[in-house]
Amino acid sequence: MKLLQIDFKMKGPWGKEMSMAFEGLAKDIAAEEHLIWKIWTENEATEEAGGIYLWQNEEALDRYVIKHIARLNSFGITEINSKKFDVNIPLTEIDRGKL
Amino acid sequence: MKLLQIDFKMKGPWGKEMSMAFEGLAKDIAAEEHLIWKIWTENEATEEAGGIYLWQNEEALDRYVIKHIARLNSFGITEINSKKFDVNIPLTEIDRGKL
Repeated sequence: MKLLQIDFKMKGPWGKEMSMAFEGLAKDIAAEEHLIWKIWTENEATEEAGGIYLWQNEEALDRYVIKHIARLNSFGITEINSKKFDVNIPLTEIDRGKL
Repeated sequence: MKLLQIDFKMKGPWGKEMSMAFEGLAKDIAAEEHLIWKIWTENEATEEAGGIYLWQNEEALDRYVIKHIARLNSFGITEINSKKFDVNIPLTEIDRGKL
């Protein structure tokens, strides 16, 4: 299990408009092989958005990062932070984290 | 509901040793008022660790960030990234995100 943390500078859309604009993309991402889940993040005040992803394995995560950064670039988004992590499961269980 | 994303440079411990070293801290964090959950993250290869937190409200998140950064500083950890986000719930639901 591997966690992917991505955030980037974006000019919107935010909130309900974001939900509508990216519904198709979210459905496409839902079909990514070996993806457990994605939480979509957004911050209109700082003009940042991104996602927290949980993957079954690192290979699928690595393939997705290459694909997703290319997609973000095609949207004109270039200031992108991407980090991958293991999840410390015993500590996460103590803190009720949902995996 | 607000998501907090924190990561920082760390020299370890990792894995099972990390689980043991921070069990008490995880129990302390579990008692934070208005915390829904925390997922603990670690990456020995890049010497980074952190957490993804879900909070019931922004005020509790902001109070925690001040407290937690002071605690990390007391551990000698100073290279800290901290970002807060709203969760886009409709998109997260499409991608099976667990809130």
